[in-house]
Amino acid sequence: MIQAVHHLNLSGERFDVVYHVTGDQESVKDIARDICIEQTIEFPADLIDADDDIRHGIMGQVKHTSQLHEDTWEVIISYAIETTGFTLPQFLNVVFGNISIKPNIRVAKLMNLPATLLNHFKGPRFGVAGLRSVVNEPRRALLCTALKPMGLSSQALAQQAYEFAKGGIDFIKDDHGLANQSFAPYRERVERCAEAVAKANQETGYQCRYVPCLSSPMESIMEDALFAKSLEVGGLLIAPGLVGFDTMRAIADHDDIALPILAHPSFVGSYVLSPQQGISHDVLFGQLMRLSGADTSILPNYGGRFSFSREECRAIAEGTQSDMMHIKKSFPSPGGGMTLDRIKEIHDFYGSDMMFLIGGALHRGEKGLTETCSHFREFVEKL
Amino acid sequence: MIQAVHHLNLSGERFDVVYHVTGDQESVKDIARDICIEQTIEFPADLIDADDDIRHGIMGQVKHTSQLHEDTWEVIISYAIETTGFTLPQFLNVVFGNISIKPNIRVAKLMNLPATLLNHFKGPRFGVAGLRSVVNEPRRALLCTALKPMGLSSQALAQQAYEFAKGGIDFIKDDHGLANQSFAPYRERVERCAEAVAKANQETGYQCRYVPCLSSPMESIMEDALFAKSLEVGGLLIAPGLVGFDTMRAIADHDDIALPILAHPSFVGSYVLSPQQGISHDVLFGQLMRLSGADTSILPNYGGRFSFSREECRAIAEGTQSDMMHIKKSFPSPGGGMTLDRIKEIHDFYGSDMMFLIGGALHRGEKGLTETCSHFREFVEKL
Repeated sequence: MIQAVHHLNLSGERFDVVYHVTGDQESVKDIARDICIEQTIEFPADLIDADDDIRHGIMGQVKHTSQLHEDTWEVIISYAIETTGFTLPQFLNVVFGNISIKPNIRVAKLMNLPATLLNHFKGPRFGVAGLRSVVNEPRRALLCTALKPMGLSSQALAQQAYEFAKGGIDFIKDDHGLANQSFAPYRERVERCAEAVAKANQETGYQCRYVPCLSSPMESIMEDALFAKSLEVGGLLIAPGLVGFDTMRAIADHDDIALPILAHPSFVGSYVLSPQQGISHDVLFGQLMRLSGADTSILPNYGGRFSFSREECRAIAEGTQSDMMHIKKSFPSPGGGMTLDRIKEIHDFYGSDMMFLIGGALHRGEKGLTETCSHFREFVEKL
Repeated sequence: MIQAVHHLNLSGERFDVVYHVTGDQESVKDIARDICIEQTIEFPADLIDADDDIRHGIMGQVKHTSQLHEDTWEVIISYAIETTGFTLPQFLNVVFGNISIKPNIRVAKLMNLPATLLNHFKGPRFGVAGLRSVVNEPRRALLCTALKPMGLSSQALAQQAYEFAKGGIDFIKDDHGLANQSFAPYRERVERCAEAVAKANQETGYQCRYVPCLSSPMESIMEDALFAKSLEVGGLLIAPGLVGFDTMRAIADHDDIALPILAHPSFVGSYVLSPQQGISHDVLFGQLMRLSGADTSILPNYGGRFSFSREECRAIAEGTQSDMMHIKKSFPSPGGGMTLDRIKEIHDFYGSDMMFLIGGALHRGEKGLTETCSHFREFVEKL
């Protein structure tokens, strides 16, 4: 028996996680109670005094249960904000740590996050308005493309970047597979591409931005981000699945870096693919990416090379825009096999607060990269 | 069209990833070709010259396809070791980055990793033999327990640690939910618990080790690890799902830290739960955890609070022991609702190269923690 604790001085402030739980009424009740314990005290509740602060305050509390469909239930559980220790890793731990290993539980939404909790998160530094401001485009959808394929030299990638920039692509990112390989080492590539885009901007008057992919080892990732900053790159592409959500957050938060963050979904797809488990599309690509500092959330668009449905993409767009107090809204950036003939349809779907990500398809233009990009830009400007 | 590249100077060395793909024969063929592209060049293959080094060397190559069951196929794809840039984040990216977002593809095994690639990974610093050596137990299964519940003060947790250590538990870890909360701040807790275990060791002659949970923000995680080291803690508990696989690797690799790493599965369950997608149990909890420096891989045992089957636990145990050249073997540490009456059965299942993780159940003993632990230890010593 744990000796009763009565002096935790908890604020009483709590935040809510909406879970979708699959099962019958009885099993859902058990699962809900189990989540309350597993995500917090992870200890037999009967061994804790019933009027103890730990039972009353630290343990999760079921606030609401209702049936959504035949065997799917919405369960809302509240947690004391103090359980998170006010850090991102421990916040993730409370929301979905151990129960990620249990079937039939899906994080559907983060709700009612109090200011006392959110004040510990800076969120996107730029957000929608900030990103519009740095490329000086107050209204239209933004344009993004990727330097590829892996295997090209830094020089060839820089030439590509130059041609994209001449055509007016706002954000020219490295493909997410460009790391520090021998054929185009990180520092050499960043230097060449940054230079190429700056040259194009001087010639065109555009404010196109080169966005290197940053997936360096933990020991050098900050240094490599600062190196990119010193060359006046226009943002950083980071895949939190590869380097950690908190690593992305720390880079976004770093005042000497202060660059737009484009978050890439590499290695995190498993969280969303199974509808009864994992994390919902809007929480993962919307809310969590924003809490982790992403100004833009790249997502595999419906109807491309990937499998997301229109509804899932809609949910992501909502997650990038939902209210989280001072945490800024981010741009959804649908990509993954997008083609130029779909621009209008995709724009109708997301509205203008989005960033088109068109990669390989730009290389199919008959008139060369720059002209194809100019055409792409003109088309979007007229939407 | 990409200009042909002929001077990549690739070594010709490749590594294999075994994927399990669900579908009919035709669709599996398409999926296999798609993986080759998606994980490397992510670019229309027809826009690259057919005799180009990128097509021949950088793109993945299907080595083998065979039917496993009715609609499940084994597809082995080889990748040039250079694609990984010889870093863990980019290795994860090549193995499962973008295809994590596509259904019906599961990483089943990493195979034939050449020395030229593995030499860039230190793997577990201690491994099975090293961990046995630091607790001076050449033969028997090792013992682990957790300090809990969240909400206790540092003093109360230290008292618990003292009682566990008096009873001879080899590794006394913080519960994975203990972060830097106000009720037991990280530095205070580590100091008190390290002191308590040292005191007990002096009294008993045992070499029990206190293992704090380390989930600090990226900016301070190395400093916090070094702080723990300065207090002569006996290891670090790290959840790579919370802080990043590469962050765990960097801490494991740090020569001034040089502590055993116990890897916790928090937040990574979604990778394994859906049998047609994600990553297999043995790759995630075995091979990847070892490549990321874990000396011990904590897993939710069959028949406990979690859902893993005997076969899945068997696979994990195999993944902790499989041959990866100099990458040391790790201890599987089955936990998650384990009880004392199951010790013999669990030991029969895993053999003695395992670490029992029993948490809450030790608190149920009628005779107090120390005596319950002594009984636990004696029982295991006689196995």
